[in-house]
Amino acid sequence: MSRIGIHSFVWSASSAQGDLERTLANTKEAGFDLIEFSYLDPANVDIGRLAKRIAELDLGVAISIGLPADGDISSADKAIAAHGVEILKRTIALTRDLGGQKVAGILSTSHGLQAQAPTRDQWNRSAGTLAKVAETAKAAGVTLNLEIVNRFESNLLNTAAQGLAFIEDIGSDNIFLHLDTFHMNIEEADIGLAIRHAADKIGYVHIGESHRGFLGTGNIDFAATFDALTAIGYSDDLSFESFSSEIVDENLSKKTAIWRNLWTDNMELARHARRFIAIGLETARRKAELVSSSHQL
Amino acid sequence: MSRIGIHSFVWSASSAQGDLERTLANTKEAGFDLIEFSYLDPANVDIGRLAKRIAELDLGVAISIGLPADGDISSADKAIAAHGVEILKRTIALTRDLGGQKVAGILSTSHGLQAQAPTRDQWNRSAGTLAKVAETAKAAGVTLNLEIVNRFESNLLNTAAQGLAFIEDIGSDNIFLHLDTFHMNIEEADIGLAIRHAADKIGYVHIGESHRGFLGTGNIDFAATFDALTAIGYSDDLSFESFSSEIVDENLSKKTAIWRNLWTDNMELARHARRFIAIGLETARRKAELVSSSHQL
Amino acid sequence: MSRIGIHSFVWSASSAQGDLERTLANTKEAGFDLIEFSYLDPANVDIGRLAKRIAELDLGVAISIGLPADGDISSADKAIAAHGVEILKRTIALTRDLGGQKVAGILSTSHGLQAQAPTRDQWNRSAGTLAKVAETAKAAGVTLNLEIVNRFESNLLNTAAQGLAFIEDIGSDNIFLHLDTFHMNIEEADIGLAIRHAADKIGYVHIGESHRGFLGTGNIDFAATFDALTAIGYSDDLSFESFSSEIVDENLSKKTAIWRNLWTDNMELARHARRFIAIGLETARRKAELVSSSHQL
Amino acid sequence: MSRIGIHSFVWSASSAQGDLERTLANTKEAGFDLIEFSYLDPANVDIGRLAKRIAELDLGVAISIGLPADGDISSADKAIAAHGVEILKRTIALTRDLGGQKVAGILSTSHGLQAQAPTRDQWNRSAGTLAKVAETAKAAGVTLNLEIVNRFESNLLNTAAQGLAFIEDIGSDNIFLHLDTFHMNIEEADIGLAIRHAADKIGYVHIGESHRGFLGTGNIDFAATFDALTAIGYSDDLSFESFSSEIVDENLSKKTAIWRNLWTDNMELARHARRFIAIGLETARRKAELVSSSHQL
Repeated sequence: MSRIGIHSFVWSASSAQGDLERTLANTKEAGFDLIEFSYLDPANVDIGRLAKRIAELDLGVAISIGLPADGDISSADKAIAAHGVEILKRTIALTRDLGGQKVAGILSTSHGLQAQAPTRDQWNRSAGTLAKVAETAKAAGVTLNLEIVNRFESNLLNTAAQGLAFIEDIGSDNIFLHLDTFHMNIEEADIGLAIRHAADKIGYVHIGESHRGFLGTGNIDFAATFDALTAIGYSDDLSFESFSSEIVDENLSKKTAIWRNLWTDNMELARHARRFIAIGLETARRKAELVSSSHQL
Repeated sequence: MSRIGIHSFVWSASSAQGDLERTLANTKEAGFDLIEFSYLDPANVDIGRLAKRIAELDLGVAISIGLPADGDISSADKAIAAHGVEILKRTIALTRDLGGQKVAGILSTSHGLQAQAPTRDQWNRSAGTLAKVAETAKAAGVTLNLEIVNRFESNLLNTAAQGLAFIEDIGSDNIFLHLDTFHMNIEEADIGLAIRHAADKIGYVHIGESHRGFLGTGNIDFAATFDALTAIGYSDDLSFESFSSEIVDENLSKKTAIWRNLWTDNMELARHARRFIAIGLETARRKAELVSSSHQL
Repeated sequence: MSRIGIHSFVWSASSAQGDLERTLANTKEAGFDLIEFSYLDPANVDIGRLAKRIAELDLGVAISIGLPADGDISSADKAIAAHGVEILKRTIALTRDLGGQKVAGILSTSHGLQAQAPTRDQWNRSAGTLAKVAETAKAAGVTLNLEIVNRFESNLLNTAAQGLAFIEDIGSDNIFLHLDTFHMNIEEADIGLAIRHAADKIGYVHIGESHRGFLGTGNIDFAATFDALTAIGYSDDLSFESFSSEIVDENLSKKTAIWRNLWTDNMELARHARRFIAIGLETARRKAELVSSSHQL
Repeated sequence: MSRIGIHSFVWSASSAQGDLERTLANTKEAGFDLIEFSYLDPANVDIGRLAKRIAELDLGVAISIGLPADGDISSADKAIAAHGVEILKRTIALTRDLGGQKVAGILSTSHGLQAQAPTRDQWNRSAGTLAKVAETAKAAGVTLNLEIVNRFESNLLNTAAQGLAFIEDIGSDNIFLHLDTFHMNIEEADIGLAIRHAADKIGYVHIGESHRGFLGTGNIDFAATFDALTAIGYSDDLSFESFSSEIVDENLSKKTAIWRNLWTDNMELARHARRFIAIGLETARRKAELVSSSHQL
């Protein structure tokens, strides 16, 4: 059974200790099993205390980041690429220290609209670097999950099939795909077909609506998504992600172009998402059983 | 590449020689590769001449039937069951004589609304009989394709999964499933999932709309259907079936409850279906290629 | 806000007083607002006591029937038609006595597979009779809601558009359509378009899956259904209907060809349906708000 | 009946006279009724000759642009805003001179990822300016059609509902919405509901797939889109738009982040789109007829 997580920016973009702990309490109250944080700086956050609180609440934790322009490991500028490696290593350490096992997000390039078409050299640099970082992650008991995002947020990996080829080039068994229905809706030929195609390598999944608001109020066929996840036997983490101009993170809100106020009451949003995912997964399971039942006389 | 067929009742329910030959000409004119006939009585039809015309037009041919109440091989009444076997054997011979390789339709029970729930004994009788008939068919170079139909037209095999269990019980390698989207829309949990589940045993497919009229004007998700057929590599025959009160077959129209005039111009209907299936299959193929393309830089 | 009902045959096909009262308790326990019963014979059931229990539980009640072959008001046989009128009048009285306001179901013809195509005379006889019965109903404070069913269960009214024309011919303002997603999936060009087309005359709605089992495990696009109901401002009753061979009604199970055991635990089924409909309606409402929100700056 | 157009960048991003004329010939050869060009500079293109060729081929023409950053009419910088007005006026003149009646595209702000959230002042400046430009357009026999685009390409008008409020604020009867399925898939709650909501004000429609490649190979429900356009009686222009890294426009390819080679053979793409739209519109029309047909006996 998948753990159902939620991205912390549903609750708050603040990294003040009190806000982070309220985020954990809200996550639990809304019925989720896992919290996904962005990077948290140990210089400002008491990581040990946060880890303890996560454990006490019996929550899972994952960390997702998007590399910054000055930390793009696909860059030909060695200082920039080295900065990216440093960020990845800090994120791996943070994940381990919080008790998590997954680093997710945009790891292969910087996050944001790129000014140039992707190149083979860029691909090779990123893959070569990730091969090494994957070893560091493995030693820390953490997997790397490469988020496949839409064209406006990265130029390199926009589809699961590109991600599979990239992972094959990397050659590490510690790197997986982080799929996200919001991005898949823009880039994939079909969400269900893409999930089936990438079945063996999916390590993390974001459940987000086409406009990033309430689940079911957009264009994504979640029944087909849950059917495909059920068909491939996916039982790893599924996290709900939603952004609204209600909660602004200076960095992320601009890169992801969050201009509209799609919700104001985040607890209402989160509870709805939790129910939506629960009944969606249950219904997909029942459908799969029905499709293979011979109704023995 | 699948051959695209059409059921002869789109053109005419008559079995006068001239009408049958006009049906072949219409089939060719509308761009189809195969004609599906109901049973034709060699006492009234010049089968050799029809076979020659089929060959001249480079058409494929399939025969589909529904066993009558007095020829139900699942019946406990031995005379009725024996009559059913005789009908099946005549149909196999007709198929062979016309140059076809497939017998399709409702072969496991009689066709029509049954008055009783199915029983294990009924299942066993039908399976045992079909095991033997399958040998006769094999010797004639013909496969048996068991149509999975909705609850109002048979009580025994309403889903592909039931059909798979039935074929396994029969134990013959000459028996396959004849799936039909009209019936699947009523009985299956999901058309695409059912096609994937039954992948290895699908021998014939009917493409029909939910109300049996123009393709695309009903509730069936044909894109998902073509995606699933593409995903399993199905390359065998696909036939278009449609019924309207415009063309009445005394027997079939009542069993299938054809009350509405869903079309009057059958050539227009057929050409639309041919284009609809063609672009549907082409689009599914392109989608499958896209979903697995790594877009190598 | 629609009241959410449930058909009593989810709970039991028995009309023993204790079973009927357990049905009410189950209905309440599973979170429904309304119970839909088939006809109950006041000779065998203590209607006053049942009505009291319904009121105590703050439940709504509706009665649905299918006219029998010997009570077909569309028949040219006057005795048969007269019997039909008598059944309708008894049903109206029962509905009133239970505290209900709606008679629903197959009222325009007998229920079951017909042997003949519909005729204009049949249509006229049925319409003429219903015009009179509608007056009786009106006097009792009860509306007649004509169920639009699939071709295998009646030959006269298979689509909402046919129903609208029929109501116009009847000329009464006390007759409405009873739409049912199970039947619409077979007969309508599109469930959402049909709901929009019939908007003004929809009096009762059945929410049932394409195979009559768990909601969401079949082919019906319930999101589109709820969107259409929201778009037309439908706020009247919506009842969940499901049949399984687990609960057999001698009459109804055969006419509706219930051969498969689609569920065994009816409380689980009912609770799932209640949650499915609740989140479906809530999500449709949020979607409608979003589609018309100008996101004022 | 809608004219079916095609964006010229399917054929070529060049504005050399010979390439433009080949684009017209290709457009005609692939069966389209209208060509959509980006802005063409009369200093470099013989507009009179192009207009004559368009007329000879009996093609319609539309011009779409995206305002540049230094011509953003929503800017508080008066020189920038004035430059935008000048661009709009030149585009109106070009459209008129080519024999067209529609200016389309991103007219309310600059095209591209914005760095700031939208503001009321920005909205007011843009609306006020467009009110005046609309008069100029009207005098030229040209309408302005504001393209509603995704969040990464403009911050002001991302949904049809925002566009309606904006047009109401402008107060001109010469301004309409330019809807595009690619963008709607990202921003709207539902494409069909949004089309219905904006029915009266839709002046131009782009038919594009979710990934901007072959129609039908992505996530957009075109059947629902064509149903909604049919339901509102839309009979104005519909243009196919698709981008691939095969054909690069220095400016547009980067703003729209075209990194993948989704097609190489543009004639194959265009012919497929033409067939896809034709059978889609025909099927939607047949479905609408069916949904309202009473099948008079």
